[in-house]
Amino acid sequence: MKESQMNGAECLLRTLLANDVNLCLMNPGTSEMQFVSALDRVPEMRGVLCLFEGVCSGAADGYARMTGKAAATLLHLGPGLANALANLHNARKARSPVVNIVGEHSTQHLVYDAPLTADIEGFARPVSGWVRTVEQAAAMGEAAASAVAAALGPPGKVATLIVPADFSWSEAGDPGCPGRKPPRPLPGFEQIREIARALRSGETAGILLSGSALHECGIRAADRIRAATGARIFANRNGARLARGGDIPAVERIPYFPEHAQALLAPMQRLILVEARPPVSFFGYPGLRGTLAPPDCAFDVLASEEQDGARALEWLAEALNAPLGATARAVRPDLPTGGELTAAAIGRIASALVPEGTIFSDESVSSNEALWLNLAGAARHEYLPVTGGAIGQGLPVALGAALACPQRKVVALEADGSGLYTTQSLWTMARERLDVTIVILANRRYRILDIEIARTGAGKMGPRAGEMIDLTRPEPDWIKLAQGFGVQAARAATVDEFIREFSAAMREPGPRLIEAQLS
Amino acid sequence: MKESQMNGAECLLRTLLANDVNLCLMNPGTSEMQFVSALDRVPEMRGVLCLFEGVCSGAADGYARMTGKAAATLLHLGPGLANALANLHNARKARSPVVNIVGEHSTQHLVYDAPLTADIEGFARPVSGWVRTVEQAAAMGEAAASAVAAALGPPGKVATLIVPADFSWSEAGDPGCPGRKPPRPLPGFEQIREIARALRSGETAGILLSGSALHECGIRAADRIRAATGARIFANRNGARLARGGDIPAVERIPYFPEHAQALLAPMQRLILVEARPPVSFFGYPGLRGTLAPPDCAFDVLASEEQDGARALEWLAEALNAPLGATARAVRPDLPTGGELTAAAIGRIASALVPEGTIFSDESVSSNEALWLNLAGAARHEYLPVTGGAIGQGLPVALGAALACPQRKVVALEADGSGLYTTQSLWTMARERLDVTIVILANRRYRILDIEIARTGAGKMGPRAGEMIDLTRPEPDWIKLAQGFGVQAARAATVDEFIREFSAAMREPGPRLIEAQLS
Repeated sequence: MKESQMNGAECLLRTLLANDVNLCLMNPGTSEMQFVSALDRVPEMRGVLCLFEGVCSGAADGYARMTGKAAATLLHLGPGLANALANLHNARKARSPVVNIVGEHSTQHLVYDAPLTADIEGFARPVSGWVRTVEQAAAMGEAAASAVAAALGPPGKVATLIVPADFSWSEAGDPGCPGRKPPRPLPGFEQIREIARALRSGETAGILLSGSALHECGIRAADRIRAATGARIFANRNGARLARGGDIPAVERIPYFPEHAQALLAPMQRLILVEARPPVSFFGYPGLRGTLAPPDCAFDVLASEEQDGARALEWLAEALNAPLGATARAVRPDLPTGGELTAAAIGRIASALVPEGTIFSDESVSSNEALWLNLAGAARHEYLPVTGGAIGQGLPVALGAALACPQRKVVALEADGSGLYTTQSLWTMARERLDVTIVILANRRYRILDIEIARTGAGKMGPRAGEMIDLTRPEPDWIKLAQGFGVQAARAATVDEFIREFSAAMREPGPRLIEAQLS
Repeated sequence: MKESQMNGAECLLRTLLANDVNLCLMNPGTSEMQFVSALDRVPEMRGVLCLFEGVCSGAADGYARMTGKAAATLLHLGPGLANALANLHNARKARSPVVNIVGEHSTQHLVYDAPLTADIEGFARPVSGWVRTVEQAAAMGEAAASAVAAALGPPGKVATLIVPADFSWSEAGDPGCPGRKPPRPLPGFEQIREIARALRSGETAGILLSGSALHECGIRAADRIRAATGARIFANRNGARLARGGDIPAVERIPYFPEHAQALLAPMQRLILVEARPPVSFFGYPGLRGTLAPPDCAFDVLASEEQDGARALEWLAEALNAPLGATARAVRPDLPTGGELTAAAIGRIASALVPEGTIFSDESVSSNEALWLNLAGAARHEYLPVTGGAIGQGLPVALGAALACPQRKVVALEADGSGLYTTQSLWTMARERLDVTIVILANRRYRILDIEIARTGAGKMGPRAGEMIDLTRPEPDWIKLAQGFGVQAARAATVDEFIREFSAAMREPGPRLIEAQLS
């Protein structure tokens, strides 16, 4: 027996490890048991159990956003993958690298159309940049290495590797080779020079950041360009991760509603796109334009989604001889005293109290604008927003971020409607003792739809329609839900109560939920 | 203005109603607000809000299993559909008619690749027998009528109708015409005669029932054939709905593990398939055959999945001159006194206490065999088992059955692992004040995988593998989870406690959860 002899499952695990994938978020079943069993032979792989597959995929997204690395998921056949799809949609829009491993029936069994048989590749395709069903046990190592390479891109992708059970239990040979971490290309010099020229032309110009351009170095470089040319710096509101607070230069986020966004961008004669596309509104509405820049705005691509936008910005700043700017430090707000418990108050309190390096996972909806404005003064932090609009990402992304950055405080700002899609995240936070503070902004309604119904031309909300966006009958009790999943929880109905609970959460580690009953 | 003038959303609702679809399980968003708004103009349509889309689809499945009618779902773009897919997979395997309505961006907005843009048809195809994106507002009525017709089959299907938002808010003309309830064809006379001849030939024969053949009239007809010919009556364990208990003749359910199933079927020289396929095991295992009948077993198709198996059985019974049998009434067990709280004890207690007409939704896994055996003595009831193996169907199916049959008691027998996939079902049960008793069979583990790991050749469960199927760290607290969703709940750790709690649940209406802590 050769020393390298191992079955497909172990080969798969060892290949992932060799390719720097060492976290697997899983909800396994029978067809994945060889993989699970191999965890005892490959202890370097960390397995984290989730009670629902959408938690696995959302956590993989959060982990990727914070590390740039791919985590693996382990999902049980077609239906297990199906439950993961919504958050894989978000990961796709975030361009997060994810290695999605999906068990499949043994190849002999597939012909029978057993109950769990489904078109797994069909489920995978809409969210995956790469899909492959392993063809034979001997291909396992190469296939797994290819999956990681595909996931890393650039840009990052969801790569789905489908593993028939018999290839897991059969001899598979050596693990796949470690891939080379792919470099992200840069734009050509001519392109930089032209954009520099345009920025010096006197046109009213803006720079729209997304992807890695929203990381600290990208924003700092963009700010140098702003200081040198007067160009305004805009941020894609659905970019994967944004550095903010402390001494990080402020950016202008594109508003949610098209009228507001169009008003903001109205003066722009030129937009420089950095890992971004021409901005469009979240939804289309009757009689409203969906594009947000003025119709005659010119676009230049400084960096495409494949390219390194942050370094391209640095290069552009150099080409402009932009001095290294000393930016103003955001002013931490004082704690409010009394008043109603509003999203604005919560943002201000969080801003006053979070430690440097905090990671916000923000899935608030109707509360989002007030939170965003008031978080500006917080210490340096990372902000992980909604990317694809699939609901139920906030808690899993917070979970993944906490797995990625165990030394940092994670704060999930969660809507009470959205939080009920993947509430199971709380259990894994408790299980892994993660330092996540969950703030539920409870308004007992899919509140945004009160606004959206009129915008779609449907007029006033009638009583029967109103019932379909109402969460008061019965009111979900977040304290009990959190405790049911093993997370300590408290309710806050006033500013003072919220300050007390949030302060305690900042002082002590561990998952902790605060149900903020909004006025 | 013509009197019939109405927008697409109202046209869609009115077409559904005209086609006898009068329940819509929904989790709407912006693109569906016109539909929601139209509820106030079309009060005959019952809208039921669910907190997660998998609850909508599973409830539509449960409703269809009990009524034979299609319910509609209303889902928010690709991600909303994605969350519904696992239970749509189950509905597909149950051959339940479901009209899946999925909102889409307005057609003008689709070109922009906005955050929520996804390949909705791609998501829909693996679970749908029929998929269509409405092409223009004027097509709404015809498209919706076609969707209902496609859903009804026969056999029943998931029909997915994708509705761009602008066709909802535009003038759409008249609703679609009501379709004719499609008749289910019967086999030819020659086929009946040949099967009758085979059953009289002296071969050892069995009749395998699925689909409508598992309804009361199908089982009664099969039992007449059994009495006349000695043929044994087998039931597909994953059929959508089975009548049982009281004076309904007993059938032999195909066991889960292939060795047991193969042993049961070993004597069979011939299997008569009634809306069933040749039986196969749930999973494939190394070195084991996946087919369950002996290799030389002959198969006859009495009724295909499209055909009316129950009526075909009645016809076959007539062709055999089988007398109308008087079957023995199942003997209700006495209540156990003391002893450990096991799945068997729970089955026996339920059997002793449920009223006639109870509907069981059973998603137990490792407890399933003991429950099944002990439920045999219950009063006449309907049994809704796992169909497609997508986890998280038990609670939504119970919800849908309760919406379908408000006068009947519904009992959900739910595994503690499986119940955590779609726990949000509890909230809608509370909201709609449904008469559902939920029994959580809590063993704090994905227990079945303790058995399956060895069966897949992965040997003993090591400590790290064991962690991946363990639910004790922390233990989910079902009492708090239920109360968190507004459902009253109690814990039972002994036989006496369970008798007390289950008796109370049988006496009083309303959703009520019992966490049964298994010994």
